[in-house]
Amino acid sequence: MRLYIGLLHYPVYNKNYKIIASAITNTDLHDLARLARTYGIKKFFVITPLRDQQVLAGRILKHWTTGYGATYNQHRKEALALIAISPSLEETIREISEMEGKKPLIIATDAQKQKTGSLTYSKAVEIIRTENVVMVMFGTAWGLDKEVVDQADFILDPVEGGTNYNHLSVRTAAAIILDRLVGRSPNCSQEEK
Amino acid sequence: MRLYIGLLHYPVYNKNYKIIASAITNTDLHDLARLARTYGIKKFFVITPLRDQQVLAGRILKHWTTGYGATYNQHRKEALALIAISPSLEETIREISEMEGKKPLIIATDAQKQKTGSLTYSKAVEIIRTENVVMVMFGTAWGLDKEVVDQADFILDPVEGGTNYNHLSVRTAAAIILDRLVGRSPNCSQEEK
Repeated sequence: MRLYIGLLHYPVYNKNYKIIASAITNTDLHDLARLARTYGIKKFFVITPLRDQQVLAGRILKHWTTGYGATYNQHRKEALALIAISPSLEETIREISEMEGKKPLIIATDAQKQKTGSLTYSKAVEIIRTENVVMVMFGTAWGLDKEVVDQADFILDPVEGGTNYNHLSVRTAAAIILDRLVGRSPNCSQEEK
Repeated sequence: MRLYIGLLHYPVYNKNYKIIASAITNTDLHDLARLARTYGIKKFFVITPLRDQQVLAGRILKHWTTGYGATYNQHRKEALALIAISPSLEETIREISEMEGKKPLIIATDAQKQKTGSLTYSKAVEIIRTENVVMVMFGTAWGLDKEVVDQADFILDPVEGGTNYNHLSVRTAAAIILDRLVGRSPNCSQEEK
């Protein structure tokens, strides 16, 4: 399995569906890094074009990987060591391509059900297992810009919980998605319809 | 399905395995309330014996259910309306018993694998589906006091992601557990070993 995850802070929507660059949050960095470590993800890319936000993320990383945090909590060190800060999706793809010797397939996530052609969890599991280099892309704020989603190789089915409500935080949605993609047997990774 | 969740802030462990009462965090309240709404949970009990913490939780709830937050974000209102503040596990059990006319079965969660007799996800799904009143109990900080865990009717298998790392946040662990218990078909809710 050569699986990567990316958390995009730009371009994403705000509450009024305008494109913005969202702020880095400490909780997202920790929660997603811990998930990445739990599920054997190779690297977790924190993607933001804003220089001050890159500096902020870098400072958090430094604290937990080489600073006081690293001795205070070894488990956090292990998790946060998986984080890489990147200015853009393009640069992230370039970095992964360089490491792996091939371009990653990009799976976008979206809370909305697509009209056509979205990827089921079982199909996604198959793609990840068959030695493809894959990056699953999550959006902050009100979700990934539609243009970015449409450029991805696949758009994953949304998380559904048997109700009409699909307004999870990116932390909990990423947890559920990674568990469905990596955390169980191939026969049981899909929702049967 | 008559499923409840509880988030205990006492008695839980701190980093040095001393029993403490942990602080309420805004993120946990929002993330777990949104999960509860997504997965059709009847009520989400925020359990703390500390009076000032109950007041804090009450203020957060008021903001989002009847204050400015309720008009700012209707989805949060719907989610946070599921929260009830309770001073203790005993009081929570009493409240559920009163609402349901029977005592809930308590399923404790623990990041540690039990030596004997822990509950598989498929068994837990069966219990929840067979018209039992059930409460799944999550711990904050470094996890639920062993005495509380031992008093529960069942202790759920820990979340495992195929690595040796099991240090998730309570938010992401709760997300994965609820998805495994409620979010998929009965045949596919367990990890096959």
